[in-house]
Amino acid sequence: MSLPSPVPKESLQESLQQVVHLLRRHKLVEDLVHKQDMPHHDLVEGLVHKQNLTELARKLEQLHPADIAYILESLPLDDRLMVWSLVHSDREGDILLEVSDAVRETLLADMDQHEILAAAEHLDAEELADLAPDLPQQVVNQLLGNLEEEERAQLQSALSFREDQIGSLMDYDMVSIRDDVRLEVVLRYLRRFDELPHHTDKLFVVDGEHMLKGVLPVKRLLVNDPDLMVHEVMATDVVVFRPDDKVGAAAQAFERYDLISAPVVDSVGKVIGRLTVDMMVDVIREESESEVLSFAGLTEDEDLFSSVWKSARNRWPWLAINIVTAIIVSRVIGAFEATTASIVALAALAPIISGIGGNSGSQTATIIIRALALGQVNLGSTRRLIAKEFGIALLNGLLWGGVLGIVALIIYGKPGLGLVMALAMLLNFQVAAAVGLFVPLTMHKLGRDPAYGSSVFLTFMTDGMGNLIFYGLATLFLLRHI
Amino acid sequence: MSLPSPVPKESLQESLQQVVHLLRRHKLVEDLVHKQDMPHHDLVEGLVHKQNLTELARKLEQLHPADIAYILESLPLDDRLMVWSLVHSDREGDILLEVSDAVRETLLADMDQHEILAAAEHLDAEELADLAPDLPQQVVNQLLGNLEEEERAQLQSALSFREDQIGSLMDYDMVSIRDDVRLEVVLRYLRRFDELPHHTDKLFVVDGEHMLKGVLPVKRLLVNDPDLMVHEVMATDVVVFRPDDKVGAAAQAFERYDLISAPVVDSVGKVIGRLTVDMMVDVIREESESEVLSFAGLTEDEDLFSSVWKSARNRWPWLAINIVTAIIVSRVIGAFEATTASIVALAALAPIISGIGGNSGSQTATIIIRALALGQVNLGSTRRLIAKEFGIALLNGLLWGGVLGIVALIIYGKPGLGLVMALAMLLNFQVAAAVGLFVPLTMHKLGRDPAYGSSVFLTFMTDGMGNLIFYGLATLFLLRHI
Repeated sequence: MSLPSPVPKESLQESLQQVVHLLRRHKLVEDLVHKQDMPHHDLVEGLVHKQNLTELARKLEQLHPADIAYILESLPLDDRLMVWSLVHSDREGDILLEVSDAVRETLLADMDQHEILAAAEHLDAEELADLAPDLPQQVVNQLLGNLEEEERAQLQSALSFREDQIGSLMDYDMVSIRDDVRLEVVLRYLRRFDELPHHTDKLFVVDGEHMLKGVLPVKRLLVNDPDLMVHEVMATDVVVFRPDDKVGAAAQAFERYDLISAPVVDSVGKVIGRLTVDMMVDVIREESESEVLSFAGLTEDEDLFSSVWKSARNRWPWLAINIVTAIIVSRVIGAFEATTASIVALAALAPIISGIGGNSGSQTATIIIRALALGQVNLGSTRRLIAKEFGIALLNGLLWGGVLGIVALIIYGKPGLGLVMALAMLLNFQVAAAVGLFVPLTMHKLGRDPAYGSSVFLTFMTDGMGNLIFYGLATLFLLRHI
Repeated sequence: MSLPSPVPKESLQESLQQVVHLLRRHKLVEDLVHKQDMPHHDLVEGLVHKQNLTELARKLEQLHPADIAYILESLPLDDRLMVWSLVHSDREGDILLEVSDAVRETLLADMDQHEILAAAEHLDAEELADLAPDLPQQVVNQLLGNLEEEERAQLQSALSFREDQIGSLMDYDMVSIRDDVRLEVVLRYLRRFDELPHHTDKLFVVDGEHMLKGVLPVKRLLVNDPDLMVHEVMATDVVVFRPDDKVGAAAQAFERYDLISAPVVDSVGKVIGRLTVDMMVDVIREESESEVLSFAGLTEDEDLFSSVWKSARNRWPWLAINIVTAIIVSRVIGAFEATTASIVALAALAPIISGIGGNSGSQTATIIIRALALGQVNLGSTRRLIAKEFGIALLNGLLWGGVLGIVALIIYGKPGLGLVMALAMLLNFQVAAAVGLFVPLTMHKLGRDPAYGSSVFLTFMTDGMGNLIFYGLATLFLLRHI
């Protein structure tokens, strides 16, 4: 495989600029043709027109599929499809694997069944498995029909696992050797390959039943005497995975033990596949992105250049939920209309109580969600964590509640109002700690992702309870004294 | 180097449970000794006492440094220091490299200068560079004195770079070869090593001046005829980095091109170091964590078990800023006291306007911050992005503004109030889009991290403007009609 030269990041930006430049030149010529009302295939214009596209196609040929994917993602839809039409069909498969789901959808929508099949032809089972969920069922069936028996079995196996299980993304391409041969023999065996599978840092040592007995790191193969036997040199302390292990846990293990590749074995210890660090890097990146997106209630990755209508719909579910909770909070405040009417200052002060409660609660939730993700919350530590967070809430409540009480006193000159302010802030810090702690912990216990949805419920509780506490205290203590 | 067997994630949780169990048993015995008022060194109790700790120490010896780091992070301070005291000094250095900054601090605080020096003894220059910023200057000086000339130069060079530059974390351990020898010779040369540097997937091909001429992937070394010359087999399309390149850009390149290692060259092309994927994985993980933490205004990584006082202080700066902005918003509402006094409903409705504005703005900001991080915002696309976000804001404003107007009408039965509500919501969606767009874009233009601080300013603006617009419109249109 001789890939075009990959380039470091700076030149990637330059490549993008060049593509944009060529596209713009191409469009200028087109506009000219249109405006001057010249025949579309006027010879000279046609040549210039063609020249820009030819140059663009040549430029694309020199780029790594990952770079083309990046450029496609950075371009508005019309430009994107123009560039996509210039890409060679034997590279389309690799590029489809690299682009984000949202952009992949726009590219596939532009291809007919024949084109998709041609693009998928060059992919192996595990790559097809990655693509299959986005393809029309008809195309998937045809792909299955075109595959060799072994690859078809692999693809079907890969498709039988959930997306968060290792089985869905493991690689079937690996080198296995026996343990009763000399390194010399292994070296000769490897020379029979045209090329080794990517990321081969270790060979899997198996017995006649393909049961894993150990691994021979390539490093050891290279530094040891070729007359030694494999079993004398191999490592037997191997990190192995099962196909139903969670992808996230595997990524953490790769990170922790600095792995490059690792065998996947079935329940009896037979080697059935391989994980490599490049997939794990993608997993880590995707996990972090989906966490950031879910903070803002973006249900899925958004194509930067998707239509207003499509993007807006992507953002609606979260906005809708927030509007419902906001209306409920509004009714809570509305219930104290009489109090507000006689003490108008409450309307100006209440948002402080609820806002700061939300801030403090999200700090607690962030700490707990991280600890849960790292598996650092265990029976022994939960009680301490809870005590600590309530301790912080008490400290913060006394401090900031006091500050805000004094501020309210200074502004409105009413000691009662200052006291109610301080007390409400103190109590809402406790509410925030409780919600920030127990929502993620409960979600985790129910087997759900604690990051998802925590923020909506947190804001709802700190807003609702904050207002209830503040207006309630004011009604209790201030109404009769006024 | 024969590390103890690494174990996959499930067993890691079990290891943690075992450690916790042994610690608890140890404490039980201690308590017994105390409570029964027996002499502290009673023979039998002393034996049981010792037995638990011995077992614990044996358990720790079997664990990978990364696993011990994980266990230390998962334990409260007293337990953590107990476990730390049982770790062999020749493994302490590796563990210090693995733990988070906050936990490292607690461990270092428990060690005297002599212990720190002993732990650091086993580390190489680039590992020391990682640790050095957390060590007392005195210890760093002594470490520099203990090093060989070459390593000292490397450490000083590493310390001269900023933390976000490649030079601060590149590795000096690598294998270089000449291009005018046969693969056979390279294979024999490698056998003279006791062990190859970790993550050696390619050998660097250099000339007499140590200028990079290409790389020989180990895969090619293994499959090709040993009689071939290095220059016939080597790859010349190499991704190289400069020591002053940004760490984040390097991590993106590793991810994009599925790299395992890559050479770092100076301005004339001389190879001076090496980057490996394990460091890049750490970079990606740290970047995503700091992003998540900064969303909640947590200035730095928090030790899960640090004291209430310390954690609280970590959370104060953000709370303080939010309190100041909340007070300003409160004054905005306060300015409309007369309006509120005559239309009390405003107090219940205003939080909806400001809250939903904040939600919508954070969606816009998240999209833009991600696009900026990926370098996908360029001159050609910025205008489109801005148009798209305002388009979404208009659509959302009409839809949700309409919904909320009707809700207000139903609750309060006043058409004027419903209209003001709808109009205010529509306008605040525009404010949210404007702030969500221009704050990150401006931060980025100023060369600052757009994620950091955007959320505080965003909430401030959507709260402040939301209330100003709502109360302002109410004052204009409703006061005279009532």
